[in-house]
Amino acid sequence: MKMSHSQCRVFLDKARALTPQLKQWEVPADFEVAPVHDPRVWQDYRLDAVGPASALAERDLGTGESFLVRLPETVVGQLAFSLISPGGYADSPSRLRITLGELPQEVVFPDKPYRGTLNGSWLQTEIVNIDDLPAEVVLPRRYSCRYIRFDLLGVPQKVRFSDIRILARGAEAELPPPPAELPEELRAIDRASVRTLRNCMQTCFEDGPKRDRRLWLGDLRLQAMVNKVSYRRFDLVARSLYLLAGCPRPDGEVCGCVMEHPAPRPGCHAHDFAMLFPVTLEEHCRWSGDYAIGEELFSVAETQLALMERFFRNDIFVGINDPYLNWFFVDHDLDLDRQVAVHCIMVCGWNALATLARKLGRTAVADAAAARSAVLTAAARKRFVNARTGVAESGPDRQISMASQIWMVQSGAFSPEEGRRALTVAERTPGVLRPSSPYMFHYLLDSWRKCGDEDRMLELLKEYYGGMIRNGADTFWEVYRPNEPFFSPYRDVRMNSACHAWSGTAAYFLRKGYL
Amino acid sequence: MKMSHSQCRVFLDKARALTPQLKQWEVPADFEVAPVHDPRVWQDYRLDAVGPASALAERDLGTGESFLVRLPETVVGQLAFSLISPGGYADSPSRLRITLGELPQEVVFPDKPYRGTLNGSWLQTEIVNIDDLPAEVVLPRRYSCRYIRFDLLGVPQKVRFSDIRILARGAEAELPPPPAELPEELRAIDRASVRTLRNCMQTCFEDGPKRDRRLWLGDLRLQAMVNKVSYRRFDLVARSLYLLAGCPRPDGEVCGCVMEHPAPRPGCHAHDFAMLFPVTLEEHCRWSGDYAIGEELFSVAETQLALMERFFRNDIFVGINDPYLNWFFVDHDLDLDRQVAVHCIMVCGWNALATLARKLGRTAVADAAAARSAVLTAAARKRFVNARTGVAESGPDRQISMASQIWMVQSGAFSPEEGRRALTVAERTPGVLRPSSPYMFHYLLDSWRKCGDEDRMLELLKEYYGGMIRNGADTFWEVYRPNEPFFSPYRDVRMNSACHAWSGTAAYFLRKGYL
Repeated sequence: MKMSHSQCRVFLDKARALTPQLKQWEVPADFEVAPVHDPRVWQDYRLDAVGPASALAERDLGTGESFLVRLPETVVGQLAFSLISPGGYADSPSRLRITLGELPQEVVFPDKPYRGTLNGSWLQTEIVNIDDLPAEVVLPRRYSCRYIRFDLLGVPQKVRFSDIRILARGAEAELPPPPAELPEELRAIDRASVRTLRNCMQTCFEDGPKRDRRLWLGDLRLQAMVNKVSYRRFDLVARSLYLLAGCPRPDGEVCGCVMEHPAPRPGCHAHDFAMLFPVTLEEHCRWSGDYAIGEELFSVAETQLALMERFFRNDIFVGINDPYLNWFFVDHDLDLDRQVAVHCIMVCGWNALATLARKLGRTAVADAAAARSAVLTAAARKRFVNARTGVAESGPDRQISMASQIWMVQSGAFSPEEGRRALTVAERTPGVLRPSSPYMFHYLLDSWRKCGDEDRMLELLKEYYGGMIRNGADTFWEVYRPNEPFFSPYRDVRMNSACHAWSGTAAYFLRKGYL
Repeated sequence: MKMSHSQCRVFLDKARALTPQLKQWEVPADFEVAPVHDPRVWQDYRLDAVGPASALAERDLGTGESFLVRLPETVVGQLAFSLISPGGYADSPSRLRITLGELPQEVVFPDKPYRGTLNGSWLQTEIVNIDDLPAEVVLPRRYSCRYIRFDLLGVPQKVRFSDIRILARGAEAELPPPPAELPEELRAIDRASVRTLRNCMQTCFEDGPKRDRRLWLGDLRLQAMVNKVSYRRFDLVARSLYLLAGCPRPDGEVCGCVMEHPAPRPGCHAHDFAMLFPVTLEEHCRWSGDYAIGEELFSVAETQLALMERFFRNDIFVGINDPYLNWFFVDHDLDLDRQVAVHCIMVCGWNALATLARKLGRTAVADAAAARSAVLTAAARKRFVNARTGVAESGPDRQISMASQIWMVQSGAFSPEEGRRALTVAERTPGVLRPSSPYMFHYLLDSWRKCGDEDRMLELLKEYYGGMIRNGADTFWEVYRPNEPFFSPYRDVRMNSACHAWSGTAAYFLRKGYL
């Protein structure tokens, strides 16, 4: 079922009407910092406070000098500062290089050539020319940063900086306080988790405010979960769903991501995310109580599953992952055999569609969806599960991955008991493929929870998110491999996003029992 | 006589009231160009047209590519262009380096390290980050340029440029047509001359729109001369005089230059320029017919000469040129013995004050000024003129310079006949110091004119300004030494200004007889 242009326009109009007024607040730099090489710390560099940032207002700086400052927390917004010529003469422009970073590596090595795979223009660096002093400078772009480096490429005589600050912005400003019962270790994780979400909550749910600044459907589902237990900005979830529905691919598939600016438009596809559209929609209706949007977008949800059925033969998913032609993301792991996972994600889709249809009184559709889910579930159990070990396997080598067990649990193809067993056995299997991204890690935690083993969930949560905290995080990272501090899917750690929506779900688990 | 703060405020209020509404117009790039090394051309590089600039709109460009375009003339304004992603995908920011040049060297060698003496931030280069495509880009700063180079540091997939243009601005837009009688050779010189002035006519008379973008008193006098025979924007001359009067040094001396932005304020001093304040004021009153401003600023003019008298002993100028303590500019030539020149500039000051005072009915002041001029004139003739050769000399080595003869003529210390003889003898003297800057060259031409030798004036004018035209100029250069194409007072030709007020006076001579 192709969507008409007029339908898209209706959805985009609804999205526009829901555009939030962003809150604005100022976050002054608190300390001047200096890089210290320390092989014991994450990525080998500390940025140690060397004095209050306010002291800069008294220091004369000239061409060739540099300094760094730190913000009290990672924030998103525009950079502002004052620049004066203490003598008042200032006979020429001031050329500054300004480098903004979420983590130290970004600001310690601004001159290191970039040879990563993504467009280097994502690195947050500017060369700014200021014609006349004194000047109140406000850079026009938005950054995500905790550290700011200034290199004085050419200034008239001596200059002084003051009031270095971020004009922060977001749909929400304040972090919701953690549940009172949480011990401090978990409070720190909760704070970083809701800060991560806050920084991604702009005029839609972005995946990361530094990169890609896009609305990704897979990330949205996780953000909606944390949002439910924290900011409860269901308007922003609704806007995000309308944006996705309003920017389909030509065949009606919702995109893996939507670009919001300068006007909403389709990004790339990700078929497994499309399968999750009914899931995200059904959850949003249930959590917000707003079933009108479920009614409006029902046919979009239905369309996704209808389109994805082309990747099934004899009730088994047979699609081949090809990042260009047919991309099934699942996890940042090219070695992963995705058959079980994607098959089960489809089951999740049918389950959600059945639930939503029943709630909307569409009984025939609900019954058909439930029936299709049952068929696919039975096929999965029959085809993928090793009868001896109880573990789901796929591919010519009968690959065992955590991803396969996780999605068997998520889809209900494994009962809680079967799931706990499969997760446990798989975890102990030598060579098992473990979650590579925090996105998959979320589903691992949720699977332990679903299987009733909240202790194991909490243990993993403390180890993983607590590990980032111990490594200096105040927002959670796109990429985290505890034993590979310099790992980057883009071959340059400076490109990694250190405030990334899909890593921010710890608060969902920590607040679930309390709210 | 120190000026009070309230007097300054009155002058600055008058200046503000005279701020012109700038005209705005668009100048599209006409050709794409490519650098060609050619040792026969000025500064070794031609920029040859390789196709219409409009063809760029059809060409896909990617990261690492570069191109250059040319404007039909040198203009001042903001750069604007359109940037699109032909595929529409554009998943990342576009980082461009944009280098704007008045002459080819500026855009052919953007990577050459700058080791000149002035602040390198004067070089017109920007690194621009554009978050979202398609984009209509307008850079916020003002440039002076004829050539624009684009280096694509990082763009998403492929991009296309179109509508590259300068949003030009100035107090005047159209070049006043040359007198009909002028032969083509002189018309070209006239056009470049009035274009140079036009580009410098912004909210005040700037010395150069690329650098220093400041109101210099010495340049203002020359600009006012050309303005009189072309644009006749006496309001802008008045505003400039008020700005100078409103930003004095603590002792009441008008500054050598005033910085206009962000608020008018004193620049550096130049004592010989201060001596020319009465001259510029008197000429402005005479040419505009507005003697009210002469009345208002009379005491400022008087103050200048009173202050400068401290550099005279026994009626002879004895000041020592020291660019930091007591700067007498006269010409860009540190070897020049400035005694005769500055002494005679003072005489010009007293002469002008006498003329203005008489016109204003201040007879006593007029008589005193005339008397002081007579004393200094007699002293000059007695002290400086070599009785045998008729040439003015100064310094321990009895240095002979064109500057000395020129200012003897300008002040009237030489009669036209004496002046013609002195100029002729000096010109033929081996080792004579010739004009180093177009500023001094203007006074050489004017001295030949004053001495009645208009043929010699025209011959020199054709040789000098015609030389720049033959070397590709469409505006006249701050620095021009026909045999030293790479000469720069700042040790890097890229720093030289190629559209400079003090070089724009040819039209004054060419139009004088006709208007």
